[in-house]
Amino acid sequence: MPTIKLSIIGVGSAIFSLRLVGDLCKTKGLSGSSVSLMDIDENRLNSVHILATRYAAALGANLKFEKTTDMKRSIEGADFVINTALVGGHEQLDASRKAGEKHGYKRGIDSQEFNMVSDYHTLSNYNQLEYFLEVAHSMEEICPNAWLLQSANPVFEGTTLISRYSNIKVVGFCHGHYGVEVLAKSLGLDIREVDWQVAGFNHNIWLTRFLYKDKDAYPLIDQWIEEEAKEWKPKDPFDDQMSPAAIDMYKFYGRMPIGDSVRNGSWKYHYNPETKKKWYGEHWGGADSDLGWAWYQNYLKASTDKSFKLALDKSVNLLQEFPPEVKSGEQHIPFIDALINGNQGRFVLNISNKGPIIPGIPEDVVVEVPVMVNKKGIHPEEINPPIPKRVMNMYLTPRMLRMEWALDAFVSGDKRILQEILIKDPRTKSFEQVKAVVDEILALPFNKEMKKHYE
Amino acid sequence: MPTIKLSIIGVGSAIFSLRLVGDLCKTKGLSGSSVSLMDIDENRLNSVHILATRYAAALGANLKFEKTTDMKRSIEGADFVINTALVGGHEQLDASRKAGEKHGYKRGIDSQEFNMVSDYHTLSNYNQLEYFLEVAHSMEEICPNAWLLQSANPVFEGTTLISRYSNIKVVGFCHGHYGVEVLAKSLGLDIREVDWQVAGFNHNIWLTRFLYKDKDAYPLIDQWIEEEAKEWKPKDPFDDQMSPAAIDMYKFYGRMPIGDSVRNGSWKYHYNPETKKKWYGEHWGGADSDLGWAWYQNYLKASTDKSFKLALDKSVNLLQEFPPEVKSGEQHIPFIDALINGNQGRFVLNISNKGPIIPGIPEDVVVEVPVMVNKKGIHPEEINPPIPKRVMNMYLTPRMLRMEWALDAFVSGDKRILQEILIKDPRTKSFEQVKAVVDEILALPFNKEMKKHYE
Repeated sequence: MPTIKLSIIGVGSAIFSLRLVGDLCKTKGLSGSSVSLMDIDENRLNSVHILATRYAAALGANLKFEKTTDMKRSIEGADFVINTALVGGHEQLDASRKAGEKHGYKRGIDSQEFNMVSDYHTLSNYNQLEYFLEVAHSMEEICPNAWLLQSANPVFEGTTLISRYSNIKVVGFCHGHYGVEVLAKSLGLDIREVDWQVAGFNHNIWLTRFLYKDKDAYPLIDQWIEEEAKEWKPKDPFDDQMSPAAIDMYKFYGRMPIGDSVRNGSWKYHYNPETKKKWYGEHWGGADSDLGWAWYQNYLKASTDKSFKLALDKSVNLLQEFPPEVKSGEQHIPFIDALINGNQGRFVLNISNKGPIIPGIPEDVVVEVPVMVNKKGIHPEEINPPIPKRVMNMYLTPRMLRMEWALDAFVSGDKRILQEILIKDPRTKSFEQVKAVVDEILALPFNKEMKKHYE
Repeated sequence: MPTIKLSIIGVGSAIFSLRLVGDLCKTKGLSGSSVSLMDIDENRLNSVHILATRYAAALGANLKFEKTTDMKRSIEGADFVINTALVGGHEQLDASRKAGEKHGYKRGIDSQEFNMVSDYHTLSNYNQLEYFLEVAHSMEEICPNAWLLQSANPVFEGTTLISRYSNIKVVGFCHGHYGVEVLAKSLGLDIREVDWQVAGFNHNIWLTRFLYKDKDAYPLIDQWIEEEAKEWKPKDPFDDQMSPAAIDMYKFYGRMPIGDSVRNGSWKYHYNPETKKKWYGEHWGGADSDLGWAWYQNYLKASTDKSFKLALDKSVNLLQEFPPEVKSGEQHIPFIDALINGNQGRFVLNISNKGPIIPGIPEDVVVEVPVMVNKKGIHPEEINPPIPKRVMNMYLTPRMLRMEWALDAFVSGDKRILQEILIKDPRTKSFEQVKAVVDEILALPFNKEMKKHYE
């Protein structure tokens, strides 16, 4: 049986790491493999290492674990590298956000039309994009044949950047397409009878095909809107697949936005807290509001605290905490299993638009599309029916341009591009405001490298 | 010698019509041709008819003239139709502008990023676009083999619309590329020694090639900026080819914007009257300011008054008013001469991007590019060097999307598209504002058809 070495960069997010380890434990075909856990935060690294080791033991899985704070050591001999690191953590995202708010950019300058997700920074997080390249270039040196599974945001910008500026095999991962299951459940459909396709960019995917028992299922959405939409209430800030925002986008674009795409509408849904509440539900106003994001930060802190506690307390039954019969839903390990062992599977992945897979999008842009994966590699499905023209012209192409601008700024170090992007921002009233906020971001203590690059 | 019938739709603009007639008189190869002058304003029509007839007689030209207020009669038997009509005239443009200003859209909702030209309405002027199609569809019936020379604005949106929705041979005309001559003169260059190319969309063209005596002439622009830019002052509101706005765009995009493209920068140059003055010069602040546009309206009124006077006064020597040795610089008649008589010439025309002429732009979008015209037709030049990536990604593609949105709104009659366009507008503060301004535009008395279409 083939064994692999998997390196996970940025395991500090304990939940995510344990989900991956859990999946790996439950994948017979990868038994005997070794996992290198890497994080620069030693406390977190240690607790994840303890939990992973104990969990694997409890499951009787044959896995070897190592831990390191050194990325280059971690990827030595790796066959797969999962990059899930958020450079600077949420504290720095918050600081960037505050710097923006000081100049009239509520929720920060990175909150932009079709990209409102609060940890999907594309303009102010030079360090994150720079680290993406550092991992890729280190892989070119140390494990040139390994696959890079890019999980850290921004997946769209990041995967496109890496695919253009390195020779490493890179694939972007997200779970936004599981919104299809939420949709099916809301409509009372058995997901196994649903024939669906999504296509677009990461956090910008649309339900292009939606059949139930071989019949067009869009009328079922219309029926739900008529009969049940009024009763809808979010269970948490992220519960937005059936929100008024999603419905409004569907009505305008003709297809349903899926997963985080719902958070990524135009300013129409985001002008202020009241607007957000109207479109994403009381009382948070969605994930990307002050309230919603605070909820998420608390949730993250609680899980980190819990994982620390679990790691310290040897009496805890981890099998109870993470039931072994449930797979996480993350695609990473099944993807590896498909590629290594030929356990063919369907995935929604971020890959270069070669073909093109989505006509009208350049081939060097990374798209998020359904693919079949087996030993021979990644085989994108034909997108049929195609993405409607309105989605292409009014949503995807504008979103793609934002990616191009962000990458042009990052690669060239030309500050005027950041300024020009902000000139298009409805929150901008003058060019002086633009100059001031960009300088404020560059003056943040953790942006020393960024400042050097841009000045 | 072949003779043609030329129909000019909307001759009310006397200057423009007389320029065309003058060119025709001076084109030996088109002697014996007939010209049908059409306008719905009988007074203006009569005065243009009198002037044209007298001018041709004074020049000893063999041309026949007819006049009519009926477009369909005018195009009967036509070989060429020039559409220069502004439906509703400047009064309606002003009314639309005022409706916008009532809701916080200074200079109207049609003033948009990369499209600030004050008579280039693409959102509020349903009547104008509708008339474009009416002319084209009438031609399909009445003179299906004739060429349509689209001169009325918006040329970009209009020519693309017609090329997609009619079978008529259509070409868009503008004179923006003469900005190259202004540039050459400013630099003290002999234009005959300049090897230049421009490419882009109408009112959005860039100087992609600029050689002087076979050597790169861009350093001469840099030198001018260093030594002479400070002394620059506009002679009139339209004198902007060497303005600080043009220079700033050149510095950012790496190529010089040409002609009306200078007016079509981002909001950076247009936030308010002070900003406009800074970038387009004292005291007008460019053509698309309250002062600049008032200057232009006065100029138009003075020329109309003058043409009425000239028409009434038979003692006037028209040859003195319109010296026969000077050709107008308009491309229409030389274009016809090239096509009919094979007097080959180089033009800058708006044609479908078949080939593609500009890679990265869909083939059903009309581009403004240099072409050679002869009896065999229109032969676009290879654009070499190509348009820089920054111009493509940060200027032309966003501008193209605005065209697509405007046409999608016009064709579908979906009011939400107009709203969605305005959501992207930096002057928009709320969705309520958007709804209010669109409804205000639709309620204008001359927009009855538009309202019906959109509601």
